[in-house]
Amino acid sequence: MSSQTRGRRPGAPDTRAEILASARSLFAARGLGSTSMRAIAADAGVDPALVHHYFNSKHDLFVAALELPVDPRVALAPVLEGGLEGAGERLLRVFLSVWDDEHARPALLGLVRGVFEPEGRLLLRDGLLGVVLGPLGPALGLDEPQRRVALVASQMIGLVMLRYVLEVEPLATMDGESVVATYGPTLQRYLAEPLPPPVT
Amino acid sequence: MSSQTRGRRPGAPDTRAEILASARSLFAARGLGSTSMRAIAADAGVDPALVHHYFNSKHDLFVAALELPVDPRVALAPVLEGGLEGAGERLLRVFLSVWDDEHARPALLGLVRGVFEPEGRLLLRDGLLGVVLGPLGPALGLDEPQRRVALVASQMIGLVMLRYVLEVEPLATMDGESVVATYGPTLQRYLAEPLPPPVT
Repeated sequence: MSSQTRGRRPGAPDTRAEILASARSLFAARGLGSTSMRAIAADAGVDPALVHHYFNSKHDLFVAALELPVDPRVALAPVLEGGLEGAGERLLRVFLSVWDDEHARPALLGLVRGVFEPEGRLLLRDGLLGVVLGPLGPALGLDEPQRRVALVASQMIGLVMLRYVLEVEPLATMDGESVVATYGPTLQRYLAEPLPPPVT
Repeated sequence: MSSQTRGRRPGAPDTRAEILASARSLFAARGLGSTSMRAIAADAGVDPALVHHYFNSKHDLFVAALELPVDPRVALAPVLEGGLEGAGERLLRVFLSVWDDEHARPALLGLVRGVFEPEGRLLLRDGLLGVVLGPLGPALGLDEPQRRVALVASQMIGLVMLRYVLEVEPLATMDGESVVATYGPTLQRYLAEPLPPPVT
C-alpha cells in the first residue's frame, strides 16, 4: 500500500504536525531518555528518515514538541559561553528576559502547570533539567552537574511560583535587576561553591 | 423561626463541619485578610457566637480549614523561639520532618496542587506566607519581613517541587541532614543577611 492510499504524503503539511504530536505524547509518557526517533516515527506512521528530515535530532524534536517561546540553546548562549564566574546572574537575566515577556509567559506557565499531571511531569522535568539547564554542566565544567543543576532548578521553579503564579509581593512587581541581585548569590553558590559532602 | 425548624441545632455534629466548609470557601475566594468571622457565620447560617465557640479566632479557623496534618504554630515553635541565629536550618528541619512523613504528605501536596486553581491560590498563599512563615517576622525580629518571608517561601516551594513532586535526583532521595546543610545557608541569607536595596 502506498503512502498516498493511507492518506499521507511525505512532506505533506500535516506530517510535521503528526510527528510533533506523536513526539509530545511519547516524551510525556516515557521521558526524553527512553523515547527514540524510531519509536516516534512508528507512532506517527511515517518513515524514520522523514522524522530526521523535519527534525535534525531528538533534542531538536523535543524542543519543538515543548513549543517553547524561545529556543533555549539560543537564549542560553551568553550563560554557557561566559564561564563559571557570574554564571548565576547571567542565568537569571536570561530567565527573567523570557518570563517577564508577557507574550512568552503563557506557554511557559502551561509547561509548569503540567507539574501535577502525569502527562506533564516528564515534559517539565526533562525540559527544565535536561534541555534548559542540562547544558550548563559541560559548558561551565560543573563538578557534580546533576546535583548542582537540581539545586538551581529548585530555586528557579520556586521563583516562578512566587513571582508569576502566586504573585506574592514584593517579588511579583520587583524590577528584574533587583531579582538578579537577590537570587544571583544563591544560584552562584549552587553552581560554583563547595557543597556539603553527599551522605549515602 | 427557630434554628431547629431550619434543620440546624446549635452544637449539632454537622455545625462545625458546615462552618469549616463556609470558611474554606470564603478564604479561597477572598483570602484570609478579607474574610471575617461574621461573614463565615452568615454563609454557614449560624450565629457568629457559635463560630467563636468552635474556633477561638479567625486564625484558628483558617488553620482548621486548611486541614494541615500538623498545627504549624506547634511545629514551628522551635524555629520561632530560637532566635535568628541558625533559624534557616531549624526551619528546614521542621519542614522536612513534616514533608518526609508519608502520612502528612498527601494533605500538603493537595494544598500545593491548588497553586494553579483560582480556589486554591489564595489558600496556599495565605497558608504558606501568612500562617506558616508569617510568624517568623515578629518572632525573629526580621527587618523587611514581607520580602524576607517571600524569599524563604520561594526556595521552600521550589524544594517541594523538585524533591516531592517532580522527584528529581539527587534531591528526591537525599537524606534530610544533607538537605538541611545544602539549603540552610540560602534560607539563613534570606532571613538574616543584608539584601540588595529595593529599587522602586
